[in-house]
Amino acid sequence: MYAPPIANLIDMFARMPGVGRKSAVRMAFYVMGLPASEAEAFADAVRVAKETVVLCETCQSYTDTQPCAICSDAKRNRAVICVVENPKDVEAMEKTHEFSGVYHVLHGVISPIDGIGPDDLKVRELLERVAAEDVQEIIMATNPSVEGEATALYLAKLLTPFGVKITRIAHGIPVGADLEYTDEVTLARALDGRREITL
Amino acid sequence: MYAPPIANLIDMFARMPGVGRKSAVRMAFYVMGLPASEAEAFADAVRVAKETVVLCETCQSYTDTQPCAICSDAKRNRAVICVVENPKDVEAMEKTHEFSGVYHVLHGVISPIDGIGPDDLKVRELLERVAAEDVQEIIMATNPSVEGEATALYLAKLLTPFGVKITRIAHGIPVGADLEYTDEVTLARALDGRREITL
Repeated sequence: MYAPPIANLIDMFARMPGVGRKSAVRMAFYVMGLPASEAEAFADAVRVAKETVVLCETCQSYTDTQPCAICSDAKRNRAVICVVENPKDVEAMEKTHEFSGVYHVLHGVISPIDGIGPDDLKVRELLERVAAEDVQEIIMATNPSVEGEATALYLAKLLTPFGVKITRIAHGIPVGADLEYTDEVTLARALDGRREITL
Repeated sequence: MYAPPIANLIDMFARMPGVGRKSAVRMAFYVMGLPASEAEAFADAVRVAKETVVLCETCQSYTDTQPCAICSDAKRNRAVICVVENPKDVEAMEKTHEFSGVYHVLHGVISPIDGIGPDDLKVRELLERVAAEDVQEIIMATNPSVEGEATALYLAKLLTPFGVKITRIAHGIPVGADLEYTDEVTLARALDGRREITL
């Protein structure tokens, strides 16, 4: 019973991840209540982001410069590449302020069930990069899911011939979490990844 | 560290009601991952909704036809007007399938603390409507908040000279809710609004 243009807008919002029907309605009515100039700015933001943002030709992350800010930063250590699933993961890593290397974004993980193979990911680009540059270490920072693990192992196998050190980020109990409420898989990984305490 | 066009898009989403920073990031990246045509369709949906949707000259609800679908429906009883705060409330009432009258949308409530007076709402339009048409009953369906109550009382006072029956929707325990967990104000209203059981 909503006017068709509103119903259409609600549908658009409802398609977004994590947005339910009620949220979509609230968001659509928020847009309807905006001054015309702000609604226009919102529509433009979508358009501009889509038009000006491209994949960095080096790391395949989203960027509006070529190469991206990280790849063109002289202070970054180009010999260490952190392989992540998505551009969002780059941001998550950057927030730690602990990583001074560069990234490579796969744009997904190998998932036969979803019909996603290595050719659907930025795997070739990674191999070309490792072949062309002087890379010393590749950190596999895909998620600790079945697909993330499989992808990390697959890439590790592919990259072995290059004689580069390949590592996997540690999985274990999150800082601040309670042992009692940690699932057994995580706990097993935490146990497996234990380190000697050096005093 | 996000590319500026992405950061801008995230900001736009984050301004929406009920959308936190993390959701805004997820939504922005969802848009980035859309095919260009779909992102364009999304931007257009915002623009078209904003450009084609106007206020119904009769009930002041959102519409893309003049008058709106409800006001132009011959099966609707024009003698009964249900006054609601927002266009969304029209939809909520319609979902009950119990109301065959027409609506009047105020687009807010009187709230001196927010500087919103009767002139900021569609009050004049309601008075003109009651003066011009043969209205028998006006149902105040504003929310049971302090402002909603005050607005209902204010309008009731304004409308009294027209000699029209003015009613207020009932407030009480929601269907399916537990007496034990119902707040005392609602419980008091439920008690106050009790009806005799006729067998």
